[in-house]
Amino acid sequence: MKNLVGACMFGQSGGPTSVINSSAAGVFTEALKQGNITAVYGAEHGILGILNERFFDMSKEDPKELELLKYTPSSALGSARYKLKDADVDDTDYKRILEVFKKYNVRYFFYNGGNDSMDTCNKISKYMQSVGYDCNVIGVPKTIDNDLYGTDHCPGFASAAKYIATTVMEVSLDATVYNYGCVCIIEAMGRNAGWLTAAAELASHKGHGADLIYLPEVPFDVDKFVDDVRHVCERNNNKCIVVVSEGIKNKEGRYISESDIGSNDGFGHAQLGGLAAKLAAIVKERLDVKVRPIELSLMQRCGAHLASKTDVEEAFAAGAFAVKSACEGETDKMVIFERDMSDGTYKCNCVLMPLELAANTEKTVPLDWIVNDGTGISEEYVKYALPLIQGDAKAPLEDGLPRFAELRKIFAQK
Amino acid sequence: MKNLVGACMFGQSGGPTSVINSSAAGVFTEALKQGNITAVYGAEHGILGILNERFFDMSKEDPKELELLKYTPSSALGSARYKLKDADVDDTDYKRILEVFKKYNVRYFFYNGGNDSMDTCNKISKYMQSVGYDCNVIGVPKTIDNDLYGTDHCPGFASAAKYIATTVMEVSLDATVYNYGCVCIIEAMGRNAGWLTAAAELASHKGHGADLIYLPEVPFDVDKFVDDVRHVCERNNNKCIVVVSEGIKNKEGRYISESDIGSNDGFGHAQLGGLAAKLAAIVKERLDVKVRPIELSLMQRCGAHLASKTDVEEAFAAGAFAVKSACEGETDKMVIFERDMSDGTYKCNCVLMPLELAANTEKTVPLDWIVNDGTGISEEYVKYALPLIQGDAKAPLEDGLPRFAELRKIFAQK
Repeated sequence: MKNLVGACMFGQSGGPTSVINSSAAGVFTEALKQGNITAVYGAEHGILGILNERFFDMSKEDPKELELLKYTPSSALGSARYKLKDADVDDTDYKRILEVFKKYNVRYFFYNGGNDSMDTCNKISKYMQSVGYDCNVIGVPKTIDNDLYGTDHCPGFASAAKYIATTVMEVSLDATVYNYGCVCIIEAMGRNAGWLTAAAELASHKGHGADLIYLPEVPFDVDKFVDDVRHVCERNNNKCIVVVSEGIKNKEGRYISESDIGSNDGFGHAQLGGLAAKLAAIVKERLDVKVRPIELSLMQRCGAHLASKTDVEEAFAAGAFAVKSACEGETDKMVIFERDMSDGTYKCNCVLMPLELAANTEKTVPLDWIVNDGTGISEEYVKYALPLIQGDAKAPLEDGLPRFAELRKIFAQK
Repeated sequence: MKNLVGACMFGQSGGPTSVINSSAAGVFTEALKQGNITAVYGAEHGILGILNERFFDMSKEDPKELELLKYTPSSALGSARYKLKDADVDDTDYKRILEVFKKYNVRYFFYNGGNDSMDTCNKISKYMQSVGYDCNVIGVPKTIDNDLYGTDHCPGFASAAKYIATTVMEVSLDATVYNYGCVCIIEAMGRNAGWLTAAAELASHKGHGADLIYLPEVPFDVDKFVDDVRHVCERNNNKCIVVVSEGIKNKEGRYISESDIGSNDGFGHAQLGGLAAKLAAIVKERLDVKVRPIELSLMQRCGAHLASKTDVEEAFAAGAFAVKSACEGETDKMVIFERDMSDGTYKCNCVLMPLELAANTEKTVPLDWIVNDGTGISEEYVKYALPLIQGDAKAPLEDGLPRFAELRKIFAQK
């Protein structure tokens, strides 16, 4: 536990979310207040910005814009998908990072991302320890997938969940409006964990939800799927709302989106339209009903106009807590959330967990929360997720449209 | 001009919008107040509800739920796509409508929809006149396409435009977040008129918009399109945001979405994924860049959580004005909007126009508002559209999710 004096470096990594910039705002706001922190840098494109010595001097930003960051989707500094090699295989990148850290006297390093990013953060932390360079390293979690180990939930998940629940409610009203039916297949993100797709159940909870929900945790069988749809159609005038995770796999573990599941050659080209289009084509062919595939695509992760206030505030708190903890001497940790229901209402506390526990471990939806023969979500999930999506928080409107943060992005010089 | 005493019938028709129920709320609220109106009926699935004698007694609804209708997307009564034959070819349906109107003493008929629905409304109006049945008929406009003749703009358009502008802002931040590029192709609705797609320009106006916008008003050339994208990619690190109308056509007038424009057999099956996927596949093949097709699908027309307050209020006003006008003896008219800028600020007045002028005439975007060699939208459009998207109006939240209207839907009996 060392109280270091020096600069801090912050980077954003992996797929952006509606609130990843809220964590950035938390880090910057807190770091600019800390006496031990002599300069606050924001790396352009995550780890690449360090390797390329391209980072912004955040003290040059207007505080009003840093405040707006809380409501600005996507990664304002730029993101990266860059995997560091193991240092004992090739330490070139690590040496370069150390060189840059020394040059700018970086003594605090905060990295904001999901599983892969926590792996990067952990590797850098361990390398700095191994070469005896004092640098307090704290990971800040982020992922709409909600699949990070150890934390009750992840910043970014709740806003995406709120987007999905709200959108499923609206789409279910629209898709069932005619006297004739329509099978509407909505594809949500989530390669291996179904947390986000399961948010469709929150819509059902409000009476405007999905008839069938498929998560990647349960093997997906195309014939059973078609039967499931047929049964809903039979009892409901061919009206059926399906929400499906992009990551559903067959029992051999192969992604349905990548497999040739159709019965005619058309489906071999279905990658053009993604999983929803592929499943819709199968339903149309086998059941001869009107179909409508919908891919929630990037909107579900950048729909900041529908952000959860709880999520925005927690993401900010996670960033600020990382800085405070590091300034108190903590290092080699990740911020996690603990749910506190001790007084009967939801409260979320930030605590620390060793970084190596987080790296590359995926948390999936408990199998006993998946019900109705793999087509429904239990009440436990609703109880888990509902407190997280509470409240609205969005950018102020200017001309009827959001006023997002406009950073000056002045490169740090030495 | 006759002051009639009797029941009123209201129906919703065509593709739903975020605010079509606001007009319903305007009709019901006003009709329930009018002394001349003895009963207020809402037809299930538009004209089909009349033919099948299935309509709800709206006086049985909780006034609080009618208020929530203003913020509830899609057509709460159910919609229809049913084209009436000309009465002189086959008057079966008209006779049946007359029979039902007589049975329930329907003396006021209001129909809410777009071009086709105004045609239906006009035909019914003319038939009732021809057989000497006194019934005051007023059409209430609705269409996200904004393509109705005679009116400054259409209820429903502004909320969809606001959805598109906001979403393009968010997606453009997300799709350009990495150090490497991505060509993101966003498909908006609009078969023949580009009003909605042009709303992407409102995002550009806020600094987070599209690089290229293609409307159906200008013939679309695939080779030129690929060149346009290439030029943006060259100057912008392969980052390019395209917004394209589903209705773009080649110079022979054939929809690009339906034509075989690819250079390999894969594109013959591109209908699975729609136009955006098709164009993305071409860009990927010819320019070898990362692509991301996005279809805004039903979300753009049912995204009531992003409704324009101006639109909600105007849609309500149009419904109420239709009832007031009919009760004052007006008939055979459609409500239109006149823009009043006389005191320098935007004001919208409801006035009446003969129904036959509206029926089946499409209003498209003026060609001189389409600039940059068919890839951009002029400042005139921004001036036109910006006042329409002002203000937020959405359903109250319950458990963090919208509380939409829940109608009892008690069928009228006689």
